[in-house]
Amino acid sequence: MTRYILTLKCRDRPGIVNRVTGALFDVEANIVESAQFGDPETGLFTMRTVFDAEVGESDVNTIASELASELDADVKARPEAFRRKMLVMVSRYDHCLLDLLFRHRNGELSVEIPLIISNHTDCESLAERYEIPFEHVPITPDTKESAEGVLLQRVEELDIDFVVLARYMQVLSPRVCDALEGRIINIHHSFLPGFRGARPYHQAHERGVKLIGATAHYATADLDEGPIIEQDVVSVNHWHSVEDMVRMGRDVERMVLSRAVRYQAEDRVILIGPKTVVFQY
Amino acid sequence: MTRYILTLKCRDRPGIVNRVTGALFDVEANIVESAQFGDPETGLFTMRTVFDAEVGESDVNTIASELASELDADVKARPEAFRRKMLVMVSRYDHCLLDLLFRHRNGELSVEIPLIISNHTDCESLAERYEIPFEHVPITPDTKESAEGVLLQRVEELDIDFVVLARYMQVLSPRVCDALEGRIINIHHSFLPGFRGARPYHQAHERGVKLIGATAHYATADLDEGPIIEQDVVSVNHWHSVEDMVRMGRDVERMVLSRAVRYQAEDRVILIGPKTVVFQY
Amino acid sequence: MTRYILTLKCRDRPGIVNRVTGALFDVEANIVESAQFGDPETGLFTMRTVFDAEVGESDVNTIASELASELDADVKARPEAFRRKMLVMVSRYDHCLLDLLFRHRNGELSVEIPLIISNHTDCESLAERYEIPFEHVPITPDTKESAEGVLLQRVEELDIDFVVLARYMQVLSPRVCDALEGRIINIHHSFLPGFRGARPYHQAHERGVKLIGATAHYATADLDEGPIIEQDVVSVNHWHSVEDMVRMGRDVERMVLSRAVRYQAEDRVILIGPKTVVFQY
Amino acid sequence: MTRYILTLKCRDRPGIVNRVTGALFDVEANIVESAQFGDPETGLFTMRTVFDAEVGESDVNTIASELASELDADVKARPEAFRRKMLVMVSRYDHCLLDLLFRHRNGELSVEIPLIISNHTDCESLAERYEIPFEHVPITPDTKESAEGVLLQRVEELDIDFVVLARYMQVLSPRVCDALEGRIINIHHSFLPGFRGARPYHQAHERGVKLIGATAHYATADLDEGPIIEQDVVSVNHWHSVEDMVRMGRDVERMVLSRAVRYQAEDRVILIGPKTVVFQY
Repeated sequence: MTRYILTLKCRDRPGIVNRVTGALFDVEANIVESAQFGDPETGLFTMRTVFDAEVGESDVNTIASELASELDADVKARPEAFRRKMLVMVSRYDHCLLDLLFRHRNGELSVEIPLIISNHTDCESLAERYEIPFEHVPITPDTKESAEGVLLQRVEELDIDFVVLARYMQVLSPRVCDALEGRIINIHHSFLPGFRGARPYHQAHERGVKLIGATAHYATADLDEGPIIEQDVVSVNHWHSVEDMVRMGRDVERMVLSRAVRYQAEDRVILIGPKTVVFQY
Repeated sequence: MTRYILTLKCRDRPGIVNRVTGALFDVEANIVESAQFGDPETGLFTMRTVFDAEVGESDVNTIASELASELDADVKARPEAFRRKMLVMVSRYDHCLLDLLFRHRNGELSVEIPLIISNHTDCESLAERYEIPFEHVPITPDTKESAEGVLLQRVEELDIDFVVLARYMQVLSPRVCDALEGRIINIHHSFLPGFRGARPYHQAHERGVKLIGATAHYATADLDEGPIIEQDVVSVNHWHSVEDMVRMGRDVERMVLSRAVRYQAEDRVILIGPKTVVFQY
Repeated sequence: MTRYILTLKCRDRPGIVNRVTGALFDVEANIVESAQFGDPETGLFTMRTVFDAEVGESDVNTIASELASELDADVKARPEAFRRKMLVMVSRYDHCLLDLLFRHRNGELSVEIPLIISNHTDCESLAERYEIPFEHVPITPDTKESAEGVLLQRVEELDIDFVVLARYMQVLSPRVCDALEGRIINIHHSFLPGFRGARPYHQAHERGVKLIGATAHYATADLDEGPIIEQDVVSVNHWHSVEDMVRMGRDVERMVLSRAVRYQAEDRVILIGPKTVVFQY
Repeated sequence: MTRYILTLKCRDRPGIVNRVTGALFDVEANIVESAQFGDPETGLFTMRTVFDAEVGESDVNTIASELASELDADVKARPEAFRRKMLVMVSRYDHCLLDLLFRHRNGELSVEIPLIISNHTDCESLAERYEIPFEHVPITPDTKESAEGVLLQRVEELDIDFVVLARYMQVLSPRVCDALEGRIINIHHSFLPGFRGARPYHQAHERGVKLIGATAHYATADLDEGPIIEQDVVSVNHWHSVEDMVRMGRDVERMVLSRAVRYQAEDRVILIGPKTVVFQY
């Protein structure tokens, strides 16, 4: 018995679930988890199904292809045990990176991490400890284009599924965002749409808010405007300086980012236009 | 087009979802919400599906009956617009009752409330304001049996689906709990299993906990041991007296109870042994 | 023994607390609660002290005056039992108003409510039930100035301490905001600074956020930019329509507003520039 | 200028704050943070004050001694920069230890960690990475007494202020708990008093609760009954297996323990009988 994950997105209409479950029943699959959502605004239907079956990966791929063509749908299928390849980008702050590496090592994050890229060397020893290859790609205004070229090349060479910006303090160019649409997860240290752009904790402190937060979203050419995957907040009060907010925010950032990465790794996120469907449980 | 809710519970095995969606597809139903859960421990499968179809209630009942017999399943089906009948029991505290009545009136709680029963008259005027019949059934140790008889009689006469104990300060006898198994929702003012029994805020204050909470659960013959539907907590500290906890707890109690009642009203709760499956979204 | 609340705001420097506690010790007062905050940015010191003493209100006022002149401070003192006068403004939605009236009646909100003003009559019967005077002051673009004149007149006549906009759907003019600076509490149905202005739940739904919230703040001439008193959020996901957000938001709005009003009623909020110090416990 | 932290506990009566602030004013100290609490039940008064002064540590100690004798109080004073010595005990799970070490290294936890003791060697390399001495002290039923002897000896030799049980899976004997009363912080993986004792996630899963949690408390001879410092919870539902709870619980455990340790490190926790006063901000 092998466990598979199948996701599907197509135009909504009657009979889709029956068609999918019929195809699975034909191979005597047992569905162990299934979630679906029809979006009234876009008219799109999305679905994620986890099933056990005694068939091989190529049979499942055939089922997926047939469903795709028959329903005119985007369909992805994979063994649950398959680990998506994730490239992490980081600057100097290491709290999000450490959190990802720790969860990766203890089995919470079912991914492979073929490479960490950084424009600084601060996190190199951390990468070493967890035995993940680390590449130092410095960035200056002059070298930004070539640095991004390195990123795109590594994504290609290493067959990367998605890129995580784990407090990577550089804005990616529209070229990269477009090339990797829906495949770059960024963590922004505010509850978007509040406090877009630079130094959100400073903005929050100046405004005197009673909550600070973090937002994991897909990077797009519009800075801090990409589809949101996960958000959370923590209470603050008049006592909290910007430094306190930075400290407290670290915990929110890493929790939010790690949840978003886990959803991505488990194919729980489906893009519908400027929004996400997240099949949590 | 009519919208229907169908719930199902049976022994887990391959093909159930395909069978259900097939039956719905046969009447050209469009599924708008669907959730399922197979419990590895009991081997039970549970499902809740909301669909639009151009067939009448009797056709849907036929489908439900056929599925029930074919799958050896408990199946319930109803139009979404159908409102379950809920009887509320209350003593002197009115915060939970007011919350339920307010939500009922503004359309959040899709139920009918044919009757409020109380062992006191404090809440009578509140019932009047919301135009809900109110019956005063005093209880003394001597009259408890006959008072409970009145309850059971009203449940029968009024075709009550479920009973809500909205801070009803009397313990129901095993006779009533058994007769209405899975149909009585109680709100207990602690996070169970902590602080069972009487005066949980006093117990919490004495123990010096940093959280207080509330638990909505089905009443069973074992006091405070019934299947849990919903729980929540709020932070407290050394400043909070028992009176503060009572005040803060009121908000948690009414929020937790109202959520549980909404789940029940929308057929989102399915009992599997001593636990609940709650198909929230 | 009478319990008093004293609040103080002045330029920060050594010796303030010693001076205040010395004045209280001279009348053998026993301090039962005390909190203080020196703001490094503005250089302001703020303090709130609750004490029991066997002296009368005029003696306490004398102490307050002496401290005010000696420390060049804003000092307010009052018996704890004194109830501030709160005027509530409301349009058609009644959930915040009901929450305030319910808490007022059960003793959670230690205020007097001499008047409710509304530009509609929907909430009149609710006001009647709780025996609070209700005045219908319709507003059209033409009558806005005179309607606001009525508000200012009532504030004066009734010796109102502060005004609560309990989902009052009209924007107050700068004239009123300035006249009642720091004395008007508004509830905005988003986590500011996200989703300022009209229809924040629609904005939230369109943006695809995973949290919605509410913010209680002082109204100022800059719409939705006033000093924030309290904020909270609730999680949402792809399932939640605008209508779901409106429903879920009602609970956040009324909780946040009621907390802010309680802080105001108990003199727990002190303005320092564009921010608030909130001495919760 | 040096910043000091002073804490005080004594019988409550008028004039204490005035006496303390008078002593500080005499040395021209500027109070930057101050919190106090008089407990109506025990009649105890507790206070924590942070102040800047141009006097040396011996002068502050003299002030503390004078206050102690004059008020018959427990008084502790220290420069804020002084770092308390914390000994960590751990078994095989490393998530809490990693969290403490990471926060220690990035400056969030102002302590020294002279030693980690473990009954296993799993965490030795983690200790090495953060350059903290590690001692392997195996425990069998036969060697428990001598192993605890080693602990007590290290506490003495290294002048340890407090011991943290970071998921140390051994129950300490009453001898050790008594010897180090109020100086051992344990993390229990449930919201106490729910699910005391072994395997709380299994207990939680079996009971079908909708929340799981963690509790940081002082270890006492009564297992899981010591004074509670901090607690938190996370929502679970029918999907969550025991393994999911263990995974989700790790985050709650480490957050709760790290907060409790920070409070202890900053002298924010004062014991009053079986409860704690925690002067958070």
